[in-house]
Amino acid sequence: MYAVILAGGRGTRFWPLSRRNLPKQCLALDGGPTLIQATIQRLLPDIPPERVLVITGPDMATAIAAQLPQLPPENLLVEPSGRNTAPCIAWACWEVQRRGGDRFVVLPSDHHIGNEAAFRQALREASAMAEAGALVTLGIRPTRPETGFGWIEPGDSDDQHGLPVRRFVEKPPLAVAERLLAEGRCLWNAGMFVWRTDVLRKNIRSFLGGCEAFLEKLEEGAALAEVWGLTEATSVDYGILERATGVRTLPVDFGWSDVGSWPVLAELLPDRGWGSGVAEPVVALDARGNLVYAPAKLVALLGVEDLVVVDSADVLLVADKGRAQEVRAIIEELERRGLGRYS
Amino acid sequence: MYAVILAGGRGTRFWPLSRRNLPKQCLALDGGPTLIQATIQRLLPDIPPERVLVITGPDMATAIAAQLPQLPPENLLVEPSGRNTAPCIAWACWEVQRRGGDRFVVLPSDHHIGNEAAFRQALREASAMAEAGALVTLGIRPTRPETGFGWIEPGDSDDQHGLPVRRFVEKPPLAVAERLLAEGRCLWNAGMFVWRTDVLRKNIRSFLGGCEAFLEKLEEGAALAEVWGLTEATSVDYGILERATGVRTLPVDFGWSDVGSWPVLAELLPDRGWGSGVAEPVVALDARGNLVYAPAKLVALLGVEDLVVVDSADVLLVADKGRAQEVRAIIEELERRGLGRYS
Repeated sequence: MYAVILAGGRGTRFWPLSRRNLPKQCLALDGGPTLIQATIQRLLPDIPPERVLVITGPDMATAIAAQLPQLPPENLLVEPSGRNTAPCIAWACWEVQRRGGDRFVVLPSDHHIGNEAAFRQALREASAMAEAGALVTLGIRPTRPETGFGWIEPGDSDDQHGLPVRRFVEKPPLAVAERLLAEGRCLWNAGMFVWRTDVLRKNIRSFLGGCEAFLEKLEEGAALAEVWGLTEATSVDYGILERATGVRTLPVDFGWSDVGSWPVLAELLPDRGWGSGVAEPVVALDARGNLVYAPAKLVALLGVEDLVVVDSADVLLVADKGRAQEVRAIIEELERRGLGRYS
Repeated sequence: MYAVILAGGRGTRFWPLSRRNLPKQCLALDGGPTLIQATIQRLLPDIPPERVLVITGPDMATAIAAQLPQLPPENLLVEPSGRNTAPCIAWACWEVQRRGGDRFVVLPSDHHIGNEAAFRQALREASAMAEAGALVTLGIRPTRPETGFGWIEPGDSDDQHGLPVRRFVEKPPLAVAERLLAEGRCLWNAGMFVWRTDVLRKNIRSFLGGCEAFLEKLEEGAALAEVWGLTEATSVDYGILERATGVRTLPVDFGWSDVGSWPVLAELLPDRGWGSGVAEPVVALDARGNLVYAPAKLVALLGVEDLVVVDSADVLLVADKGRAQEVRAIIEELERRGLGRYS
């Protein structure tokens, strides 16, 4: 099995650590390896770097390559422009086939997985399901009525492994998310897919004529950049999974988090009294619930709570934790004020 | 007239900007010249650097000298150890006399003065009072029931300039400070004194036998460090002013502030919407009342108020503004934890 790591996202929510040329997946948010390094390391027992393809954009390729010295250079695929996930997964399908692979797992590059052994076990189960012809999406057991994710409603159990997918519910309103959570059967779609290359290609042919034309041109020897525009700029979820038959989900539970914002990171890291973060030493008096990311300094906290404090080489962010997801508005303000070099 | 600038204080309340070897007077707290540079510059129209003596301790002498290139090296007086203000003022008295001066003003090195012309005018008036034989202390019109300062209770006006001092009230309890403020006649003692060298010396002889013995040994050619211990380790206020006759005060009003803490600095600097400080550029959303000192970075504030945020090369402080005077407790904690290099 090959692994295809999608590393094109920008991750503005981790500004000022994430920057235009330094996306979230390149950050060591927990003080250990970066998210993309961890993504590859946790595959290692089963999938060596030779069978890992990483897809990213031209802005970020240098940063990504620098982080992954073990990745063969020809396994870093640089898409000419961001066109959502369907085109790059179609391209990856062709690249895997070209290298002799017959199936692959698609993984985001910027998520956290707490239980790596359970994760690898899930991949092995999903690989067996894919072997039998299914388009498999891993289904995360939900813990909250999250409106920012896609949800999977499974059908009834049958005699095969995993569950058939009845339908996808993309980013539901809160009332719907609450109902889906209460029903107890629905799962989160975390963008982790496993399929055979031939099964995926058949579905591309059926549902994504543009991507199919793109692949045919590639096979004829066309330059990537010249035929990239033939593809549908859509997600693989919408473009294929919501339309195809044989889509199945494997319910999994391996301590997954999308690490989607500073407050989410705060909860993943151990509480050190004053809060959590990546900072050492910290001296605190009457401080609690803060997230501090300041690896290069002594940090002193005095009588403050529920703040996000992020110190980078040229930017210092101090935010109320409940509003940290509004950093996008700060980035917009930077651009309005001609301070785009900080964004 | 000579000026004697007392620059021995450490100013822990401006930690982490003020450090053991970088005291408050060496800081550019308002983004302009440092406090000690400003102290000397505002004298310049009347008192050239040749007639300015600066007294400091051995730890800080290098930092002070680096800030005052215009000061003749022999005008930087390094006291062997801190023994409060009486010994160093006695020494300064002798140094001024030795250079042919007949009177001097004593000034702290770490205060803010908003109206420099009014300040110089006050010095000229005080100089005339000293010429007539008075020990003069400038009296600041109080604006709040401050318990951290010494207060001056003047006597009735007489036919001379200024007012006689009836008594000093050192750091009164709040109820007393409130009464002194309400009475409307009392003034703050800001440590700014003007006197003739011969009048001061006579009072040293009367009230500070140890300091007098020290000066006599100096005159006989003793090495400073060997006779420094003869002095009384006391303040000139307590050692002389509270006992002497002929003590007068000149009520003044020149926008004085002791710049005693981060919140006091916050009020001296113009409000920029999100608060005040030394930082550029700042991008803020729903922020107010903050003090930010981060001259080397872009600062982003999001939904925060009444914080003190100070970014130095190796320390980041984030404090509730109402508790910023407790930074001393942080320094103590640093020392307990073996992190004294940050203090």
